[in-house]
Amino acid sequence: MIILEGKPVKEKIISEVKDYIDEGKDKVGILLATDNRSAAVYAKSQVKMFTKYGIEADLCNPDGNAKQEEILAKIEKWNNDENLYGIMLLSPMYRQLNRNKIVESLRPDKDIEGIKAINLGKLMLNEKGLFPPTAVASVEILKHYGIETEGKNCVIVGRSVIVGKSLAVLLLRYGKMGNATITVCHSKTVDIVNYVKRADIIFSAIGRAGYFKASDFKRGAIYVDIGINVVEENGKRVIVGDVEPDEVEHLYAYTPVPGGVGTVTNAILLRNYVESKRRKDING
Amino acid sequence: MIILEGKPVKEKIISEVKDYIDEGKDKVGILLATDNRSAAVYAKSQVKMFTKYGIEADLCNPDGNAKQEEILAKIEKWNNDENLYGIMLLSPMYRQLNRNKIVESLRPDKDIEGIKAINLGKLMLNEKGLFPPTAVASVEILKHYGIETEGKNCVIVGRSVIVGKSLAVLLLRYGKMGNATITVCHSKTVDIVNYVKRADIIFSAIGRAGYFKASDFKRGAIYVDIGINVVEENGKRVIVGDVEPDEVEHLYAYTPVPGGVGTVTNAILLRNYVESKRRKDING
Repeated sequence: MIILEGKPVKEKIISEVKDYIDEGKDKVGILLATDNRSAAVYAKSQVKMFTKYGIEADLCNPDGNAKQEEILAKIEKWNNDENLYGIMLLSPMYRQLNRNKIVESLRPDKDIEGIKAINLGKLMLNEKGLFPPTAVASVEILKHYGIETEGKNCVIVGRSVIVGKSLAVLLLRYGKMGNATITVCHSKTVDIVNYVKRADIIFSAIGRAGYFKASDFKRGAIYVDIGINVVEENGKRVIVGDVEPDEVEHLYAYTPVPGGVGTVTNAILLRNYVESKRRKDING
Repeated sequence: MIILEGKPVKEKIISEVKDYIDEGKDKVGILLATDNRSAAVYAKSQVKMFTKYGIEADLCNPDGNAKQEEILAKIEKWNNDENLYGIMLLSPMYRQLNRNKIVESLRPDKDIEGIKAINLGKLMLNEKGLFPPTAVASVEILKHYGIETEGKNCVIVGRSVIVGKSLAVLLLRYGKMGNATITVCHSKTVDIVNYVKRADIIFSAIGRAGYFKASDFKRGAIYVDIGINVVEENGKRVIVGDVEPDEVEHLYAYTPVPGGVGTVTNAILLRNYVESKRRKDING
């Protein structure tokens, strides 16, 4: 039974892209237009990550009176900044802001989170573009450990655009890391265990601590845990996944939380940044 | 057991949109840059359909020496024609033509086949846009007969962008005509009958005559046959679906071929045309 650690995957990806970064010159824009605590924690970790690799993070964190025009002006500035190759728009956003309009204003070639329609469409068409890092990371971690998805019964739990749906599209591409039979389950699925118990590979992106137990899965199965859930354990806040690794000996492999998909996701975000920098012509 | 005839569905849709057509003024552009016989037959049927509803069809059918620049100039002309609200680009195209560049040149708001990245991305995001008619028709035909997909085990066979993948995304939307658990099978699926035999609703878009038999499906199942296959029968060319309706009494319902999804697809194409006309602001 193999634990699919994210760290070596991350390190390999970083080693492939880091030479393209101009330290002290390259910048990233991060919009945190919320007072949501989790988003703030995430923003802080992203600033730290980009800074570590020599990319200056311009964190825009307006107070609760932020106006739509101010935000759009900031995006416009980032769009036109020749040394800034990536923009992240954290969720949620203050209620008075029109998120769709803000996303629309973002240049497609700086959309390193792959949230714009044009990039999602390119994903559908299997054209070059910037794709959602979490979905990409879920495939990359398997690839790194030589686990192919071709012909496998892959069950994805969760139907968000940037995880469940994007992952389904990725796994349907041609090739050894595609060609999967995919099933997408969600809150309206009747008897979800009936699907996951037959799966060769389970991708869980529900966001509920311990929703599944490893013992729900069949012998030889692989699970990729995309959930990141904060729970209290003995008075301490700890991060756990969607799957409780109760009995894992019958599995072929699984990704831990923390230290699995999330770790790789950051590396993919950085790779998207570098792709945006190297290929300015993907602008749709 | 109900036969889900396309005709009443088509008639209802047409009745909802026909008043928005300005007869003798509205136009559609159809590019047939191929000498492929099936494409020519299809083009002819499309010209007939649009003409019937008062829309003048401008069929561009260059010979085998067609140059990329000529085609792009034609698209540009259509893009700028204020009375032309829809453009169809038939496949295949002559080998010397760059299909991707031609699709790119098309205005998003005249893309009534929903083949551009921006429209496919809007489909993923569940935003307003122009979506592939065959995928939409497959859901509309069920809706017309009061068959909801919510909570159902829906198995889609075929993974093309404009049918299989688009249909999967449609069936994952929120609502009674979404909220399905979807599985996408294709040529690399291991033991495909194992999936379809459990399905509540089977959508087949393989394009192989009689690939399934109705008796492969469980009691109470519904099948939506998206295949359009030309075969010889007693020396005559006839059109059949992917499913051979051998024994259908145990089913709840099925769509015939011809006269099922294909019939509704034309109506959706016309509806897309009218939507393009009424909502010029969807331009991405």
